[in-house]
Amino acid sequence: MTEPTTSEEFGPEEVGLALRNHGMHLEGLRYPVTPIGMHYLLIHFDVPLLDPATYELPISGRVRNPLRLTLDDVKARPAVTVPVAMECSGNGRAHLSPRPVSAPWREEAVGCAEWTGTPLRPILEEAGVLDDAVEILFSGHDRGIDDGVEHDYERSLTLEEAMREEVLLVWGMNGMALPPQHGSPLRLIVPDWYGMASVKWLKSIAAVSEPFTGIQQAAKYRYKSSANDPGVPITRKKPHALMVPPGIPDYLSRKRYAPSGLVHVEGRAWSGFGPVERVEFSADGGRTWDDTKLDEPLGTHAWVRWSHEWDAGEPGEYELCVRATDATGKTQPLNASEAWNLGGYGVNAVQRVPVLVG
Amino acid sequence: MTEPTTSEEFGPEEVGLALRNHGMHLEGLRYPVTPIGMHYLLIHFDVPLLDPATYELPISGRVRNPLRLTLDDVKARPAVTVPVAMECSGNGRAHLSPRPVSAPWREEAVGCAEWTGTPLRPILEEAGVLDDAVEILFSGHDRGIDDGVEHDYERSLTLEEAMREEVLLVWGMNGMALPPQHGSPLRLIVPDWYGMASVKWLKSIAAVSEPFTGIQQAAKYRYKSSANDPGVPITRKKPHALMVPPGIPDYLSRKRYAPSGLVHVEGRAWSGFGPVERVEFSADGGRTWDDTKLDEPLGTHAWVRWSHEWDAGEPGEYELCVRATDATGKTQPLNASEAWNLGGYGVNAVQRVPVLVG
Repeated sequence: MTEPTTSEEFGPEEVGLALRNHGMHLEGLRYPVTPIGMHYLLIHFDVPLLDPATYELPISGRVRNPLRLTLDDVKARPAVTVPVAMECSGNGRAHLSPRPVSAPWREEAVGCAEWTGTPLRPILEEAGVLDDAVEILFSGHDRGIDDGVEHDYERSLTLEEAMREEVLLVWGMNGMALPPQHGSPLRLIVPDWYGMASVKWLKSIAAVSEPFTGIQQAAKYRYKSSANDPGVPITRKKPHALMVPPGIPDYLSRKRYAPSGLVHVEGRAWSGFGPVERVEFSADGGRTWDDTKLDEPLGTHAWVRWSHEWDAGEPGEYELCVRATDATGKTQPLNASEAWNLGGYGVNAVQRVPVLVG
Repeated sequence: MTEPTTSEEFGPEEVGLALRNHGMHLEGLRYPVTPIGMHYLLIHFDVPLLDPATYELPISGRVRNPLRLTLDDVKARPAVTVPVAMECSGNGRAHLSPRPVSAPWREEAVGCAEWTGTPLRPILEEAGVLDDAVEILFSGHDRGIDDGVEHDYERSLTLEEAMREEVLLVWGMNGMALPPQHGSPLRLIVPDWYGMASVKWLKSIAAVSEPFTGIQQAAKYRYKSSANDPGVPITRKKPHALMVPPGIPDYLSRKRYAPSGLVHVEGRAWSGFGPVERVEFSADGGRTWDDTKLDEPLGTHAWVRWSHEWDAGEPGEYELCVRATDATGKTQPLNASEAWNLGGYGVNAVQRVPVLVG
């Protein structure tokens, strides 16, 4: 793994990842369901080219009745459509110093799509998972090299997590067939968790009798304090609120300019640990906070809209912040340094939007 | 304007633009029509939120019968669906040294969508452009600041260019309603030109009696040799061929690894000056070239598929290149330095893909 950097400049590798891995335009927070093409993307390797007509998904390993499902087989099962807020666990990484060298996300690795699919649990029950199985392993068709290891992208879930009724095999997004870049023809959706669990371009599902130790499970996607620390697995999304930056931007710096007077601010908030109960807004860099108005959430696994009328008052420079707190009492740190970890995961520090009013 | 930089590292502004302005994944060159969400995006300011139900487009200025069209009015007119290859004029900018500071594109600012809309010419004829009009000015709802100037994004076309039968007002993309980030509810499409001419989120169309001198016309989007050079306007797309990088990638460096033996390489090529007549492939960094197989183009304004079976032969490092030549004899420079200009526009140097075979 590349050492974190203290440079304020970014290397060609980071820029390459920023160009491929699309961020959601923060003005996209205005939409309850993120339009296709605005939703964030994190694609480890290449987008595989798979033919839905010949696609097959084997479900095997420690099961009584191995299955082999065509896309039509999967689509013939009971379908549900569910809005799910998704966030890359690397979101916020670029705010760290020293900065882990990977996709240099600030706030934009988010989205909330309406996914159409079928629950995984009845499929696993039909396959008959054997008593000695401890995890379900999901393999993707996307293959490449990371830290010198060639592999298909693979992640496991404990049997208990895989059996959660909201875990889905998904073939549709926002009422359309799943686009190639989002995992066509079939992907996993694990609501409430960070995006790395929702394996795209599913190649196989297998029940395994030992915990999976592949690179994306045992080395990557762990909260580690140092290279020698085995770390803690990354699972659910921490609470996070974001705002649509108000006013108009400068093209290059993206610095914001707003008129004085009453300014409407709004955004969305989510947490994988429980419902968002409070979203606060600050116009002074987080010294003082006001409660904002929360709408009804779109669904249990979606994000919730918040809004606030901010009296911008006197011309001058302001630093707008927003902070979510969920039903378990979890909230967001004021500074990214409080969330520092070696891989730059789960950095849910409050968003800071400098605005020049006048 | 920010001075070009000789740094090999990238500043936070460039990374911010890379995160917002989506590149097409080069494996997307496999699709004749680029899936929504893979097509490149260059969004100068914010994506405006416009309501199709109340949307109106005034057509005014030096016309006999000013018009005010609702979206339904526009959609009631004769519709055509046309595949158009689009490319940002800043594509290739990051290969320059010194490097102009803006969106740090390498090769990925491309796409080919099927646009549905109606020709502009009959609308201008209905409005009755007066004899003293010299240009048609297209204004967008996207507003912001660039080089210190606050403005709506605006571009003009000469009357002759605006009257080309292939210039369209477009409400559909790949069979769907135009997504917000591509200019919903209505945008301009100017086939064969670089993307800056195809104004999104149309706010107004006006016939004007003097050439338009707004910042995006007279200062930006010109081939300039220095800050004092008034420069030459950027218009049509230069010839450009790109390949799907073969083999599998390393996550961080995107370096490619391929097995030895016969390797299938393919991609697309286009030119705004005329049909692509030849695409050549090199495996030795451009010292020797082989002709590739060209398919029939999808349409006059689309891209054309090329393919080649490359005998990778001995294990080792190879540098793959691809080069297009169009019917006017225009071709691509071997090195980006040959295309250097102050803004980093139209840098159509041959793509170079290092591959480790073995």
